Amino acid sequence: MNRKMVFHMTGQIIAMEGGLLVLPLIVALIYRDQNCIPAFLLTIGIALVLGLGLSFLCKPKDHVIFAKDGFLIVALAWIVVSLIGALPFVLTGEIKSYADAFFETVSGFTTTGASILTDVEKMSHSLQFWRSFTHWIGGMGVLVFIMAIVPSVSGRNIHIMRAEMPGPVVGKLVPRLRDTAKILYLIYLFLTVSEAILLLCGGMNLFESIVHSFGTAGTGGFGVRNSSIGGYSPYIQWVVTIFMLLFGINFNLYYLLLIRRFRPVFKSEELWTYLCAFLIASAIICINILPLYQNVAECIRTSSFQVASIITTTGFVTTNINEWPTLSKTILLLLMLMGACGGSTAGGLKVSRVMLLFKMIRREIKHMLHPRSVSAVNFEGKPVEVKTLISVCVYFALYAGILAFVFLILSFDPKVSANYDIETNLSAAVSCFNNIGPGLGTGFRNVAESFAGYSIFSKVVLSLAMLLGRLELYPLVIAMSPSTWRKQ
Amino acid sequence: MNRKMVFHMTGQIIAMEGGLLVLPLIVALIYRDQNCIPAFLLTIGIALVLGLGLSFLCKPKDHVIFAKDGFLIVALAWIVVSLIGALPFVLTGEIKSYADAFFETVSGFTTTGASILTDVEKMSHSLQFWRSFTHWIGGMGVLVFIMAIVPSVSGRNIHIMRAEMPGPVVGKLVPRLRDTAKILYLIYLFLTVSEAILLLCGGMNLFESIVHSFGTAGTGGFGVRNSSIGGYSPYIQWVVTIFMLLFGINFNLYYLLLIRRFRPVFKSEELWTYLCAFLIASAIICINILPLYQNVAECIRTSSFQVASIITTTGFVTTNINEWPTLSKTILLLLMLMGACGGSTAGGLKVSRVMLLFKMIRREIKHMLHPRSVSAVNFEGKPVEVKTLISVCVYFALYAGILAFVFLILSFDPKVSANYDIETNLSAAVSCFNNIGPGLGTGFRNVAESFAGYSIFSKVVLSLAMLLGRLELYPLVIAMSPSTWRKQ
Repeated sequence: MNRKMVFHMTGQIIAMEGGLLVLPLIVALIYRDQNCIPAFLLTIGIALVLGLGLSFLCKPKDHVIFAKDGFLIVALAWIVVSLIGALPFVLTGEIKSYADAFFETVSGFTTTGASILTDVEKMSHSLQFWRSFTHWIGGMGVLVFIMAIVPSVSGRNIHIMRAEMPGPVVGKLVPRLRDTAKILYLIYLFLTVSEAILLLCGGMNLFESIVHSFGTAGTGGFGVRNSSIGGYSPYIQWVVTIFMLLFGINFNLYYLLLIRRFRPVFKSEELWTYLCAFLIASAIICINILPLYQNVAECIRTSSFQVASIITTTGFVTTNINEWPTLSKTILLLLMLMGACGGSTAGGLKVSRVMLLFKMIRREIKHMLHPRSVSAVNFEGKPVEVKTLISVCVYFALYAGILAFVFLILSFDPKVSANYDIETNLSAAVSCFNNIGPGLGTGFRNVAESFAGYSIFSKVVLSLAMLLGRLELYPLVIAMSPSTWRKQ
Repeated sequence: MNRKMVFHMTGQIIAMEGGLLVLPLIVALIYRDQNCIPAFLLTIGIALVLGLGLSFLCKPKDHVIFAKDGFLIVALAWIVVSLIGALPFVLTGEIKSYADAFFETVSGFTTTGASILTDVEKMSHSLQFWRSFTHWIGGMGVLVFIMAIVPSVSGRNIHIMRAEMPGPVVGKLVPRLRDTAKILYLIYLFLTVSEAILLLCGGMNLFESIVHSFGTAGTGGFGVRNSSIGGYSPYIQWVVTIFMLLFGINFNLYYLLLIRRFRPVFKSEELWTYLCAFLIASAIICINILPLYQNVAECIRTSSFQVASIITTTGFVTTNINEWPTLSKTILLLLMLMGACGGSTAGGLKVSRVMLLFKMIRREIKHMLHPRSVSAVNFEGKPVEVKTLISVCVYFALYAGILAFVFLILSFDPKVSANYDIETNLSAAVSCFNNIGPGLGTGFRNVAESFAGYSIFSKVVLSLAMLLGRLELYPLVIAMSPSTWRKQ
């Protein structure tokens, strides 16, 4: 392990957070949030001193970076950045407990959107902005962001990228990694700005347009109203629906469109499966909820919105899903677990992994019927290596195992045992681990949408679950395993 | 596909069921169940005519049997045997609807123990006996049983065995398959008789001793009292606890003990993991439920009983688990999904599969930290083939997929949508698919333990789920896939 390099890089990322905090500071100045200005200034100071100090003190002698180091940098960076990002909430007193603020910030950076706030409308503008901005930063991954800016020694970033990018397929779009990151980042920026402009055109004010674009881009789900997107016009709801879907698509495909390679995009198995899943689920739910709503247009809009929000693990809501029939809720629950495309900003297992698992099952059955047959699993027109197949399977097992573990640990909490039942704990675990957040938050049984009722212990467990889900399990598992820290 | 052979074998199994039905007929004669005698006679007649007729009409020209045929025979046999086994319940009028009777019989043969009866004490003795006897027959698998008796062409049984035996490891104990089946069958008989004698010694009457031994041996869970094992003495409860645990152990180990090969038994990883899981879970639950019970002895007895009942997917109960704290219920739920050892009569994923998945995860993490390392996964002291590892993973994926599918299909039923919520459907699916049955039956929320409230559609779906779980997924999946029935 290259300890110095790990701390050096983590320090740089913390300093970068200090820079990013200038934006909410500006918002505080515009809205004259008297209470928030010193809080942001102090946090910026702490981030800069700590970050630059760490980076300076741990100047690495050699720049070699191992796989382990990459995973460690990612895990450490997300935790420390969340620890610092929680400060403004506590310093202003708008969130009383530091554990709550940490939960809220992790929820932001991991683009989960689960909240301990019971009344988000009371919060000052600059803090609302910071809350949603963490979604946006988290969306493409702090590190992809960092890589496009921080000067890097050639080759050393490959492992960070591997640890950071969501989904099983990380296509190296262009030979140099920094260029890849920059291109992805520009696409991300372009889509966010497009959404904000379209929302502005629909009559939403500038602040809310930006904040909701952040929430959509990161597939996060933090809003500024207690009714989430429910109070806005049908036009706004459709815009958000379409952009949620767009942010759930593999970003590699946008790059391919950019360089005019249309064929692989239109033949993408994952894209079609994703869109079909969206359409079929929306259609079934639309028919299922017809008796509850006044007209067909509203049904189509509501079901499309909710399916897009859940499949992309965003978590915006326009209606009270708890009142929907069992069939609709069951479909949403299963979509939650699947998530959207790999290489997007969404959480969950990812469509491509589910497809690969399904293809492996089909092959196994075929092999049982014809024991001597040998057949490869193909995906996106290419045979998949056995190593990748095993990785996907093991990922699925680890995914299920961690979900069960989080669910079990939650039930150990005496406070939880007294107040919450199995269903609440399970849906809290699912919703945090898959980075979904509000909406289907804590359960289908009209439990409050916020996570306020959980004890500090459970909030920390759920925060770790969000990080595990966001970072695709391994960085955090590796950072938490004792053998990583043992001296060789 | 060797169609004639498939139907020929299925016919023989049906005829065999006719023979087995003589036992409940004798019980009916002893207890003078006037109503039941003609019902059993008629069913025996139908089984013999249908079975022998089918077997005679479909005399196969060649005795070659393919993997596909083996799976088909198993799937067909279990379904047809359940269809016929349901007749006595309907003919006597003690279960009104045929769908209910089919559900009850499938639940018996698959050793699930889920019931549509709201008052089992009202049922006549001979039907109670038949109900529990199906557990016993199902326990070791109709086919293993058949193989030890029906004269078989050498070599043709291997695929049936593979499809039938629970668990990933089917050790061929002795060179000839028929001998293996006979030995397993004798061990099974010996354990059942031992339990019945010990129960008799505890003051239970002969009828109840036999019936409860059947229920324990098959890890089924049908009893003859509405309070399950709750009304019996502590001694009886301990006997049942110990025998449930014994029937959850891989039967190969008993054979090894028999031929005095103690070393592999005492070094069996699966056995130790299984026993440790039992002890740890019992200890935690015992401490957790201490405030609810009068004394420590009762706590230890109750928690041990319930953990043994759930881990072996038996489903006997001695207390109302719904009143237990969330922690205890969570632990039981997770044990349900795991199940007991492979090669036992228990359902669920099996301890060995869970262990292999865990070992694969550990290897994957190690491989991530040291990308150039190559390491094999060892189990029971031997390296496991890559093919087996992939099979275990794919099995797990299929297991999760089917569970999700059953859960989804249940919610499509309009009757269910109106009456049952997500939690009830999920726990019904888990409990049927893992062959657990009563006890944690339909949910943790004080829903009635019986499945009486479900519609016919849902009962059929749940029956298929029980069969899928019992037959380790593939036979039924293969029987249901259209390509199997297509002419080549």
